[in-house]
Parts: sequence; C-alpha cells; structure tokens
Amino acid sequence: MAHSCDIQRISLNQITTERWNLREAVDGCVREDIPWIALWRHKVAETGLAESRRLVRDAGLQVSSLCRGGMFPAQTAGARQAKLDDNRRAVEEAAELGAEVLVLVCGPAPDRDIDSARKWVAEGIEQLVPYAQSHGIKLGIEPLHPMYAAERSVIVTLAQANALAERYTPEQVGIIVDVFHVWWDPDLYGQISRASGRILGFHVSDWIVPTPDLLMGRGMMGDGVIEIRRIRQSVEAAGYQGPIEVEIFNQSIWDTPGDEVLALMKRRYLEHV
Amino acid sequence: MAHSCDIQRISLNQITTERWNLREAVDGCVREDIPWIALWRHKVAETGLAESRRLVRDAGLQVSSLCRGGMFPAQTAGARQAKLDDNRRAVEEAAELGAEVLVLVCGPAPDRDIDSARKWVAEGIEQLVPYAQSHGIKLGIEPLHPMYAAERSVIVTLAQANALAERYTPEQVGIIVDVFHVWWDPDLYGQISRASGRILGFHVSDWIVPTPDLLMGRGMMGDGVIEIRRIRQSVEAAGYQGPIEVEIFNQSIWDTPGDEVLALMKRRYLEHV
Repeated sequence: MAHSCDIQRISLNQITTERWNLREAVDGCVREDIPWIALWRHKVAETGLAESRRLVRDAGLQVSSLCRGGMFPAQTAGARQAKLDDNRRAVEEAAELGAEVLVLVCGPAPDRDIDSARKWVAEGIEQLVPYAQSHGIKLGIEPLHPMYAAERSVIVTLAQANALAERYTPEQVGIIVDVFHVWWDPDLYGQISRASGRILGFHVSDWIVPTPDLLMGRGMMGDGVIEIRRIRQSVEAAGYQGPIEVEIFNQSIWDTPGDEVLALMKRRYLEHV
Repeated sequence: MAHSCDIQRISLNQITTERWNLREAVDGCVREDIPWIALWRHKVAETGLAESRRLVRDAGLQVSSLCRGGMFPAQTAGARQAKLDDNRRAVEEAAELGAEVLVLVCGPAPDRDIDSARKWVAEGIEQLVPYAQSHGIKLGIEPLHPMYAAERSVIVTLAQANALAERYTPEQVGIIVDVFHVWWDPDLYGQISRASGRILGFHVSDWIVPTPDLLMGRGMMGDGVIEIRRIRQSVEAAGYQGPIEVEIFNQSIWDTPGDEVLALMKRRYLEHV
C-alpha cells in the first residue's frame, strides 16, 4: 500500500465537530496542529462574519472551502431569484473569509419533475459564475449520493458535475470529490480522470456497514468499506494537491469531545487516506 | 396525463404483505382479483415447494418472478461455488413454480474491493446461464439503489445491468427495472431505451420525502416523488408489456391488514402507474 498523505493537507470540515462553535473549532485546530478548516455558513452567521474572519486569520488557519451555496431549484422565478441572491451572499462571505472555493450542494426538485430541477441548477450556476469570478471565488459542484436526490441534490454523479463544470473554465467552476458520495459509482475513476485540472476539493469519511442512517451514518476513515487511499491517489493523478477535508455527519462522533475527534481523525488520515 | 395501466398486469410481490405466508398471499390475491404474484424463496421454503406450486396453480395465479438469486461475490472459490449451487436451486424452484424469471440481486463485496466483487458477479452469471436456460428460466439482473452497494448489490445502475445482460441473448439474460432503485439516474431514459427487448420485469413503489430509512423507507405509489407513470411508459416503449410488481418494504404497510394493502395498491396502481 502506498505511503500516507501529507498531514499538512488535512482540513477540519467543521460539521465534523458540530457541537463546537467557530471559535472552538479554530482553537481545536490550533491545539491539534490542523492547518486548514472548512467553514459552514450557519456557524459563520452565529459568530459573525467579521469576527469569524478575524479568528481564522489570527489563528493562522487557511480556509479550504465555505459550505455551502447551491439549492437552486424552486417552482417560481421569484423563488429562484431569492436563492440566487442568497448564493451571491455566500460568494461575498467566501471572499471575506479568504476561501477560494464555495461548495455547491445543488438542491432537490420542488416536486416530482427532476428534469426541470436539473435545468434550474444549470441556470443557477450560469447566473452565479460572473459574480463569483468577480470576487475571486471558484464554484465547486459537489455531486451528492443518489440517496439524497429527493432532499438535497439532483446532481448525484460525477458525470453530471463534470458536464456542468465543463461549460466554464477551471478557474470558474470545478467539482468536489467526496468519497462518501461517489465510491459506489461504476465510472468513478473514469470521471475523476475526466475532471483533471478541475478538482477543487477532496472530502473523506467512510461508509459504515451496516449503514445506520441516511444522513447521520457516515463513519471515520477506516471504519467502513471505501477504498479511500485508492481514490485519493486517483484524485492526485488528476492534478489535485490541495487540502483534504474530513467531513463526517455522525451522531456518536458529534457526541465525542472535539479534541478526541481531532486526534482520531489525524491518526486515521495517516492510516487510511 | 396518459391513461391508467391495465389492472390485469398488476402483481403482488409478496414482500409487500410480509406478514402473510404464501397461502395467505395467494388467498388475498384471489379475493382482490390480482392475477399475478411474485414469490420469495424464504416464503416458498416455509410452505414447501410442491405445496406452494399447488396453491398458486389451484388459485389460477401466474407467477411474475421468483425473488431472488444472485449474491455471487465471496472471497474464496469454495464460497463462490456454494453460492452458485444455491443459485442453481433457485433456478430449479423458479421452474417448478412456473416463473419465467429469476430475479438476481447480485450481492455486495465481501471486503473493500468493489472491482473484484463486480468481476465475481459477471463470472457467477456466466456460470449460471446454461443451467437457467436448460430449465427455461430467464435471469433478470436488478440494479439496486447505490445506497445498497455495501450490503446488497455492487450492481447499482441500469448501465451496469445492461452491459452485463448484453453478453447474452434476451432469452437468457435481461434486466429488471424497479423505479425505487433507478429513478435518480441522470441516464434513466437512455438506459431503459438501451434495454429494449431485454426488460424482464417492472417494479413499482415510491420514494418518500423525508426518507425514513434505507431499507424500510419505500412508499406506496403516489406517496413520493418518483415519476412512475413516465417511467412505465418508457418501459413500455422499450417493449415491455408484462406484469408490474408492487414491491414495498415499509413497516407501516407491513403492519396494515393485507386485504387493506391489496385494495390500496390496486387503487394507487390505477392512479399513478
């Protein structure tokens, strides 16, 4: 098995320590020598944008991404405009926080019409690109696992994400590869290769067996069946050398003291990523 | 919206009335004028093969399929041979019961190596085909939803099922389209069209929002977000005119008296399929 991944690329996606506020997450990263952090908008809002920025900078942390924009589909033009406005605010926040990438979770259909929802996603991205570019922010389309198609994202494969991203330059739009969302895909390695030069983020966790829950069932790296290292190497072969976010939705991890979670994720990162 | 589907094509997949034994399910179909039934091997074993056959024939029911063969991957050649032997017994049972189709749920990987598991699935099907053909049984590859990739099937897309089936004649191997498993697929209609002449079964249920559970979260037709009628019409355009199985894993439906479930599924079939 190939060598471990550079620990200097590890990033705490702050949802992994869901009980911590932004200040606590920043302090935790400093204590555990974790150089990167991925921020969530609701956590930033809770602490305040300017204060969040100050905390992150004073700690010397780098922001790997802001989660999340997207959620484009809605039944009326007015509702879609409101969502676009919110995405513009997300772009502004990403720029203020020093994140290069805004992660897009593209949103579900408002009804049974998944084709229209996919069209609205494409339109939403098209409308957002100039604004993002003018703020120096890249848009990272994250395909979610198909089990979230009805509630979180109608973009469920790397092939879809690649097709959407390829309408733009790699400086404008790319894709996010999250092992939990894509490990099952028969075309996984082909699509990662297709995304060469366009991968804007790499997220790790694991798929636990038996799977306890749709949303809260993710595991710590090494506790499940995903070939994480193989996927990481393929993402690197496609040119990605950036931060690697540990992003885990799991109640028992959320219930564990944050410092323990950070120590564990570093150990597992070295063993399995 | 187009007209309803012929009620004479409705089939009770007996897992939908999980608390009924085979005799009770047969009697229920007779009372509710449901002309088809799909049998499960554990229910057949409970009643006995010969007695199951007699009950179904005396009631004048037709068997739309036997569930299920498959589960091919295993780490040792000996274990894979044992699985093949079990599949041969499933073929014999299907022939005895008068089912034309044995549904294949292809099985998970025994470890993290999903590529090897997919290879073992292909090998297992190849070894099973001559035996099935000699018994007049067609093998129906059912791709499962990707959320079952780690526990039930490494075959998770219609594209995979089509590629496997196309190695054989349509009299030997085809595919099963279950709306619950495939509705999210961006290439859904293209793959159904590709399967023209090879579709061996069509299963209906619905995807409930919010989704309560990975396994037990299926809904009655009309209770969720799947475009069932559109998919049914596309399956018909691909040449399928056979029985339509109602197959629902859902605890609250299982807890409902069977006669009520059958009456409801007939009504919903006419409204939504």
